[in-house]
Amino acid sequence: MLIIATYDVSTDTAAGRKRLRRVAKICERIGQRVQNSVFECNINEIQFEELERELLAEIDKTKDNLRFYRLTEPVDLRIKQHGCFRSIDFDAPLLV
Amino acid sequence: MLIIATYDVSTDTAAGRKRLRRVAKICERIGQRVQNSVFECNINEIQFEELERELLAEIDKTKDNLRFYRLTEPVDLRIKQHGCFRSIDFDAPLLV
Repeated sequence: MLIIATYDVSTDTAAGRKRLRRVAKICERIGQRVQNSVFECNINEIQFEELERELLAEIDKTKDNLRFYRLTEPVDLRIKQHGCFRSIDFDAPLLV
Repeated sequence: MLIIATYDVSTDTAAGRKRLRRVAKICERIGQRVQNSVFECNINEIQFEELERELLAEIDKTKDNLRFYRLTEPVDLRIKQHGCFRSIDFDAPLLV
C-alpha cells in the first residue's frame, strides 16, 4: 500500500530543529521524499505501524503535526504532480 | 471527493516568496489548511480542474513542485493524524 506521510515540525527552537532532522531521517529510510516534508512510502501494515511508532517517539505532540494518507489501488490514478521534482538532500547545508 | 494538495515553492527569491503567498491564497480559498503546505480540499471534479488550472498559472514549473493525492471513500479511514493541529495564518508576519 502507499502511505503519504506529511509533517510540520516546529523549528522555533534548537530542539525543534533536531526533531525535524530526526523525523526526516526516519521517513527517508522508509519512503521516497517527494517534497520537503512529504514522503511516499510503499509499505505494508507492519512497516506502517513501525513508521508511526518511530515518528511518534520523536515528535512533540504539543508543537508538531504528523499526518498519514492511505492511497488505494491503483495508486497511479490517485497521484498527479506538476513542476520540478528534485530528489535532493533537503537536510544538507544550503550552498549559495 | 477529497483532494490532498501539497506544494514546495522555492523561496530563494522575492518572486518565489510572492508565488508561495499566491499559491497559499488559492488553496486557502478552496481547502482546509492542515499543515504549512498541505491542504485538504473537499471538492468536485470541476472545482479540482479549476484549482489545478489556477495553481499551474502561479507556480514556476522549473523551480516548484505541486502534488495532488485523491483519497477514496471512506476518507476518514484513509487519514490518520497526530499531534498539534493549529489552524493559524501561516502567512502572517512572524512575531517573536
